[in-house]
Amino acid sequence: MAASAAISHSTEPQAGSAFPPPSPQKRPIDREAWIAAYRTVRAETESRAAPLSPEDQQIQSMEDASPTKWHRAHTTWFFEQFLLGEHCPGYRIYDERLHYLFNSYYVQAGPRQPRFMRGMITRPTAEETRGYRAHVDAAVASLLRDAETAALEAILPILEIGLYHEQQHQELMLTDILHAFAQNPLGPVYDEAWRWPVSESRKGQVELSRSVTQIGHGGEGFAFDNESPRHDVLVLPATIDRALVTNAQWLAFIEDGGYRRAEFWLSDGWLKVQSEGWEAPGYWRRTERGWSSMTLAGIQPIDPTQPVTHISYYEADAFARWSGRDLPTEAEWEIAARDGLLGDAFGHVWQWTRSAYGPYPGYRPLPGALGEYNGKFMSNQYVLRGSSVATSEGHARIGYRNFFYPHQRWQFTGLRLSDAGR
Amino acid sequence: MAASAAISHSTEPQAGSAFPPPSPQKRPIDREAWIAAYRTVRAETESRAAPLSPEDQQIQSMEDASPTKWHRAHTTWFFEQFLLGEHCPGYRIYDERLHYLFNSYYVQAGPRQPRFMRGMITRPTAEETRGYRAHVDAAVASLLRDAETAALEAILPILEIGLYHEQQHQELMLTDILHAFAQNPLGPVYDEAWRWPVSESRKGQVELSRSVTQIGHGGEGFAFDNESPRHDVLVLPATIDRALVTNAQWLAFIEDGGYRRAEFWLSDGWLKVQSEGWEAPGYWRRTERGWSSMTLAGIQPIDPTQPVTHISYYEADAFARWSGRDLPTEAEWEIAARDGLLGDAFGHVWQWTRSAYGPYPGYRPLPGALGEYNGKFMSNQYVLRGSSVATSEGHARIGYRNFFYPHQRWQFTGLRLSDAGR
Amino acid sequence: MAASAAISHSTEPQAGSAFPPPSPQKRPIDREAWIAAYRTVRAETESRAAPLSPEDQQIQSMEDASPTKWHRAHTTWFFEQFLLGEHCPGYRIYDERLHYLFNSYYVQAGPRQPRFMRGMITRPTAEETRGYRAHVDAAVASLLRDAETAALEAILPILEIGLYHEQQHQELMLTDILHAFAQNPLGPVYDEAWRWPVSESRKGQVELSRSVTQIGHGGEGFAFDNESPRHDVLVLPATIDRALVTNAQWLAFIEDGGYRRAEFWLSDGWLKVQSEGWEAPGYWRRTERGWSSMTLAGIQPIDPTQPVTHISYYEADAFARWSGRDLPTEAEWEIAARDGLLGDAFGHVWQWTRSAYGPYPGYRPLPGALGEYNGKFMSNQYVLRGSSVATSEGHARIGYRNFFYPHQRWQFTGLRLSDAGR
Amino acid sequence: MAASAAISHSTEPQAGSAFPPPSPQKRPIDREAWIAAYRTVRAETESRAAPLSPEDQQIQSMEDASPTKWHRAHTTWFFEQFLLGEHCPGYRIYDERLHYLFNSYYVQAGPRQPRFMRGMITRPTAEETRGYRAHVDAAVASLLRDAETAALEAILPILEIGLYHEQQHQELMLTDILHAFAQNPLGPVYDEAWRWPVSESRKGQVELSRSVTQIGHGGEGFAFDNESPRHDVLVLPATIDRALVTNAQWLAFIEDGGYRRAEFWLSDGWLKVQSEGWEAPGYWRRTERGWSSMTLAGIQPIDPTQPVTHISYYEADAFARWSGRDLPTEAEWEIAARDGLLGDAFGHVWQWTRSAYGPYPGYRPLPGALGEYNGKFMSNQYVLRGSSVATSEGHARIGYRNFFYPHQRWQFTGLRLSDAGR
Repeated sequence: MAASAAISHSTEPQAGSAFPPPSPQKRPIDREAWIAAYRTVRAETESRAAPLSPEDQQIQSMEDASPTKWHRAHTTWFFEQFLLGEHCPGYRIYDERLHYLFNSYYVQAGPRQPRFMRGMITRPTAEETRGYRAHVDAAVASLLRDAETAALEAILPILEIGLYHEQQHQELMLTDILHAFAQNPLGPVYDEAWRWPVSESRKGQVELSRSVTQIGHGGEGFAFDNESPRHDVLVLPATIDRALVTNAQWLAFIEDGGYRRAEFWLSDGWLKVQSEGWEAPGYWRRTERGWSSMTLAGIQPIDPTQPVTHISYYEADAFARWSGRDLPTEAEWEIAARDGLLGDAFGHVWQWTRSAYGPYPGYRPLPGALGEYNGKFMSNQYVLRGSSVATSEGHARIGYRNFFYPHQRWQFTGLRLSDAGR
Repeated sequence: MAASAAISHSTEPQAGSAFPPPSPQKRPIDREAWIAAYRTVRAETESRAAPLSPEDQQIQSMEDASPTKWHRAHTTWFFEQFLLGEHCPGYRIYDERLHYLFNSYYVQAGPRQPRFMRGMITRPTAEETRGYRAHVDAAVASLLRDAETAALEAILPILEIGLYHEQQHQELMLTDILHAFAQNPLGPVYDEAWRWPVSESRKGQVELSRSVTQIGHGGEGFAFDNESPRHDVLVLPATIDRALVTNAQWLAFIEDGGYRRAEFWLSDGWLKVQSEGWEAPGYWRRTERGWSSMTLAGIQPIDPTQPVTHISYYEADAFARWSGRDLPTEAEWEIAARDGLLGDAFGHVWQWTRSAYGPYPGYRPLPGALGEYNGKFMSNQYVLRGSSVATSEGHARIGYRNFFYPHQRWQFTGLRLSDAGR
Repeated sequence: MAASAAISHSTEPQAGSAFPPPSPQKRPIDREAWIAAYRTVRAETESRAAPLSPEDQQIQSMEDASPTKWHRAHTTWFFEQFLLGEHCPGYRIYDERLHYLFNSYYVQAGPRQPRFMRGMITRPTAEETRGYRAHVDAAVASLLRDAETAALEAILPILEIGLYHEQQHQELMLTDILHAFAQNPLGPVYDEAWRWPVSESRKGQVELSRSVTQIGHGGEGFAFDNESPRHDVLVLPATIDRALVTNAQWLAFIEDGGYRRAEFWLSDGWLKVQSEGWEAPGYWRRTERGWSSMTLAGIQPIDPTQPVTHISYYEADAFARWSGRDLPTEAEWEIAARDGLLGDAFGHVWQWTRSAYGPYPGYRPLPGALGEYNGKFMSNQYVLRGSSVATSEGHARIGYRNFFYPHQRWQFTGLRLSDAGR
Repeated sequence: MAASAAISHSTEPQAGSAFPPPSPQKRPIDREAWIAAYRTVRAETESRAAPLSPEDQQIQSMEDASPTKWHRAHTTWFFEQFLLGEHCPGYRIYDERLHYLFNSYYVQAGPRQPRFMRGMITRPTAEETRGYRAHVDAAVASLLRDAETAALEAILPILEIGLYHEQQHQELMLTDILHAFAQNPLGPVYDEAWRWPVSESRKGQVELSRSVTQIGHGGEGFAFDNESPRHDVLVLPATIDRALVTNAQWLAFIEDGGYRRAEFWLSDGWLKVQSEGWEAPGYWRRTERGWSSMTLAGIQPIDPTQPVTHISYYEADAFARWSGRDLPTEAEWEIAARDGLLGDAFGHVWQWTRSAYGPYPGYRPLPGALGEYNGKFMSNQYVLRGSSVATSEGHARIGYRNFFYPHQRWQFTGLRLSDAGR
């Protein structure tokens, strides 16, 4: 899989990479750089879909997941709806009916196909979706080439958010197809060559001393609205592990009855353990020769040295309690990470923090329908930091706030431990 | 659609048709006729799948329905499991793992994919399924050509049931894909040329006088086990309409508040009307220009002269009560039909009877796993008689007992009225 | 419990008993006999409620069951709605608001409290319900005493149906409270002295020969509308056991893997076995000293000589298949019973037949809201014949058609076996 | 209702009040003061139950609520389990079986009746529950009188937590019975004389300037474990309204389409609005003469001057967004409240904050089963501050952290607005 090689494990821009693009504020505007960035991102989407049959691209294996084809069409709709439709005079909508099918959740952008019904749409086919993408790609390239410079000032910020948006869906494409394949007793392989990245293998702990400092987006480079404003936080003394928790550590938790002893669990988590019959991380299966797991390379034995993944917040929290440790807050994580003190912070597994996902003080969402991008999800979820093996190149950054519900575990989610407030 | 032209509207064998095959008891055994019948039926399945994309063949739009690809593979599994596996020495199973995926409900044939998860199987693909079919087809043809005559005595009855079994799935392929397409706001078209067959337009009523007579399978030709044994029934005086109930009649029911007046409905039916929000037959939609319906030819205006279809037993029963009439029993239907007295008995819509589906007196299922074919469904369902526009050529017969739950309406189901026991 | 002693085990009227009352057609009208019948039935309801605390009378332990207090009030509402409200000029409604609360399912009698919410009504209290009953009782007695003779002609048939209706609820009072008590780990006792009636202990089988004969209500004495009209049926040769199936026989079924072997079960039944985890009849619990069961006398060891009870149709059917036997049809049962050939036909357990519950040929429901009494339930249920230990004195008769859904088993339901149509 | 008069609207101890008791650390130990405090709290529970019939005390109207009788027994079990069972040598358990029935959620204290089945327990009756309470009360009084002084050091902290625990259930008794009565179309009245307390009617806003300050329990007086440890927080500049949001303001929100405009709502909240059909606060009903609401005094017209109540967090958050305002954090609330700057902070409605409920830095739960009291609920909930009209006298304090799920609204929950972080 070409995609796999392209996955970045750091947040440093790669030399010669077309992504990320220049800042939309940079003058003079480098139109070719923007076109290259657009093409790079769009090509990565198709590259990730390439190993999949039309059938693979069709299915929605649970309500949280979406079909590959839907991701390909929805990211295209995003440019058509927010960029071409509003900023490209004379643009011809490819097919009005697709707006109903491929709007995800933007209430202000009109009615839409119910989320759980995304897998019911066989037409347009995977092949026909290619036509939709090509139509929009041509229009965006023309727009970038031909638009007045003044118009580009409005266009580039939307283009930029569209590119980061598409990268988010690139990550979901991998996690969603992994979930779908895990439903098939045949255990299909997405990429024979897929492997976990090599760990930095850092040991020991970072010590944070008490301080009032700032976190959040400071104004340089792209960030989603939920990373702003930059603001003061009070950090209390804490220590954070440089290493991620590994499968070997998790096996000890399992063997010590971790999934059977209520005293380690949040009440809501314990209900989930019982109703779902959890006794190991997601996709783990007990075999005659020990634990195996469904991966992008098919069913593979558990490697004890790799970071544990496909764990929910509830499991991360229970593991920390069993360990007599804590999860870090997102502020603690960000402060330690920006000084380069954490190992494997990016490109392995998203790391659960103990911070409930909410607005930063003074947060204001974007105006219009794009204001629904992040703000309306600020309840009942927890913040994850870092990035994962499935995150696209150039997408991660220190201040990135990912968020999921505490029971969800189909993402590449793991943890690192800390001792907080002692 | 080639398939459409081939749909038979009578029960008479067509001259020169390869199906139905000779009786398995006929001597000498005409091996070529059996091979031709096998090929005819197998080709019809592929012909019905031909207009569909791989995506179309993938989806399961509700638990009652199955993916096209699943139908194609399951009917193949049926021959592999019951014919080749047991009667073809040296036969090489195509892929053991497919038995889990494509066993429908035969508990005695081993564990199987849960019904509601049939749409989760993207591999084998639609294209790969073709390979499975070809492998089995070659083996069956060789078997028919090369088996000892004595062995054929055991083989032919199983082959025959396999062919009728596959025809049943051919009907489901059309009704299932119609349901799937109806979920898509784009209203995909299965066959532009699809049309309702022309009605025989018979008027008036058949009068049945009191008699003790026989119904059920008398021993000639193929029949499923649930049609036996032939047995006496007491028929009371009744009259049965020669014509089917039409859309025009149903519109009068709707306009008279049929779906809003509890007094016409069985209690369980009324609960369904309310929980599902029924206000018309399945697939009907109110448009600015009157009622339309999703059909195999896409969304079409309702034709008042055609028989009403996609109605549940509850609706048929309510309509009869609103009309001050009855539904016939299955015995009444069979007696009237075998004397050729009913119009449009075959090839239009299955006709609900008021007979609960149960065993005929003295019924015994087939031995072994095939005994699960019909017998275990003999509760909570109602008998339908006749055949529909989607029934394969050569499949229908006078004594045929179809059965569905009283709330189901995705089949081509309609009704004719009677006055019973007066 | 006084009620227990009063439970009749035959259908013969007891000498000196006030119930059943005279025929409404009998002249001259014996007003005192009707008043006595009314008082007898009404007193039995209160007698059955007497051992219960206000809390006991409050709860609804599942949607199928109703609170004792609700039964007491609903039966009272029935007389107020259908008798006093329509036939007693000047009658003062006790409290209009109770009509919403205590209408069961008569759509034509107005809106009503949702069935599953019956346990939410704490006011009126059990004690206040006594006031409602007394108000209606006084009015009914006055009406019977003072009405014009001509008016009584319309009144008595409604009164009569009201009395049989109340007796039906008397049976439900016992089965519903048994279900409620079975939810309480303390295992409350309804009646310390409660015992199974003594069996008639008949052995062998009744032989039925082929005949066309009549079943159904012939016009003498009371019957519900669903027992009419009397009509011809064709009965095929059959044999029916004189004895009921016992707990000892059922234990053999359990020990032979009856609840674990799919081959004995209807498909819908097997789903129920699995989803509910059935491994024995309702209320059975495995203890260190063998099987026990919750009964009206609290938790008691299973008596192998008693008839098995609290079994669903699915279990009865599976048991018959395991036995290589059948269940009788309702016609076979009625013909054998009316000749006195069946042992323990009444007063032990209702006996499942293999007849789906439907209208007799020519059946017409009562006019008006009372037409909803029986007719609208004629789908998806099976007929039971006989009567049970909980049936009120004078209520049972040969032609009585009881009916329940095939998964229900909180009634005193059992079976006798037959060999049908061989 | 005597209870109503006793409800405190401030956090100041009332002169001469028996509750709160002395500090468990105070020497010499005033045994009589502790006995008086115990009796006062226990009597308040019975006083709140007094207006209720046995039936009223029986029902559980939703899974979140519990029967009155259950509250009375569970609070008694708490003393038996944690105080008498562990610290009273020779204590005779009243009835072992009650421990299964009346353990709420303490996994480490043994198995227990499933929460949603609490309404299924009719025995012990309300009357019998009185006996359980008396037995435990006598034992506790004896223990307090007779225990060695040294033993009292372990006893008093548990007694104290038991008293605050029982007061929490006193509040639930009122909110749960209000919910139960709201299910009854008759609209029963709990207390004819019940009235909203008079508002302090403060106007304007409290200004908070930036500071690092401390919140949490500082060591004096009782506090639950979740209020500790006292710790530094960074507070950013903010303003908080002195007044609560009123019904008049809420009516403006409704009239402006507040419940129909998705742009004001969190995504999870909007799903709830649609699935539950919310169009006003809990218990509100539209009548011909405007809005009314179910209250402890029965159905009453909405008083526009009173604080709005029975709103979920989702509604509070949507209202704030509609207002262009915020909800305060719990730290902001606590800082403003401890300087006495907020009007109606106590005794009216609990006030939603925008703080997700989590552990304070360095939080450690109590050892043993009592550690389950608060800690295991620290996910998916939001903190509320203040106290309500239903809170028992002496229970509230500045640092009190109440918490509920964001969709819950059967408590007396309201809000005050702020402008945060600007």
